[in-house]
Amino acid sequence: MRAAIRLAEKGMETNSGGPFGAVVVKNGEIIAEGFNRVTSDNDPTAHAEIIAIREACKKLGTFQLDDCEIYTSCEPCPMCLGAIYWARPKKVYYACHREDAAAASFDDQFIYDELDLKIEDRKIEFVNLIRDEGLPLFEKWKAKMDKTEY
Amino acid sequence: MRAAIRLAEKGMETNSGGPFGAVVVKNGEIIAEGFNRVTSDNDPTAHAEIIAIREACKKLGTFQLDDCEIYTSCEPCPMCLGAIYWARPKKVYYACHREDAAAASFDDQFIYDELDLKIEDRKIEFVNLIRDEGLPLFEKWKAKMDKTEY
Repeated sequence: MRAAIRLAEKGMETNSGGPFGAVVVKNGEIIAEGFNRVTSDNDPTAHAEIIAIREACKKLGTFQLDDCEIYTSCEPCPMCLGAIYWARPKKVYYACHREDAAAASFDDQFIYDELDLKIEDRKIEFVNLIRDEGLPLFEKWKAKMDKTEY
Repeated sequence: MRAAIRLAEKGMETNSGGPFGAVVVKNGEIIAEGFNRVTSDNDPTAHAEIIAIREACKKLGTFQLDDCEIYTSCEPCPMCLGAIYWARPKKVYYACHREDAAAASFDDQFIYDELDLKIEDRKIEFVNLIRDEGLPLFEKWKAKMDKTEY
């Protein structure tokens, strides 16, 4: 965890982005690191956890982090939490709470609240269109013989 | 939306990943495209919306998608929804519902359910560690004079 916190500090001090760091650990060894690079990379998805997960998967040659642990300097935002569920590590350690991030003007808590709202009540408008034309894709997927499930 | 659905189909047919596509539109023009590449890229974060958002931001040289609209072939998963909130487009159009994705064996609904649970009740274990050592970073952030807020 101290490595994750050091990365968070490094990212902030180099003006890469906010004060967030994360590492992925496998068999007691750090296999990937990340710190927030949203503003330096012009990439709103470049959160510490996303960067560390992508690097770890690249290194392991897999899209799953079985038997890995993630250490992050702050409770993951909904985007990173989603990424963690897709990557499926066995455990996550975090230092600060989402409320700590919110108190420093980060949107984490706001986004958690929005996710809980019905789609029609959200701040960003979500509009449903031509579902009937999208649905057949899922039928094709279900019937597909050579697919890799994830 | 039909462009997003066509991308979804293309991604599935080329065995890049699941049947999901997205485009980012600005001033009536498609400025970025994405389709799911999770399994081909070994990247659990390579969802259609994430790829399209990253490409759009790169093209615009910004970490915000003001005045942009996102068209996605399926209601975003929590990761992508989080990414959308960080990118802040003005509107999102979607074709299929999250339940349609779940019916085709995608974890979207499961992850939405997990996010609603208390952190101690989740399937992936979350453990809090040395918050006191992480907290000073947020104080430094708040006091930082040359930061770029996002």
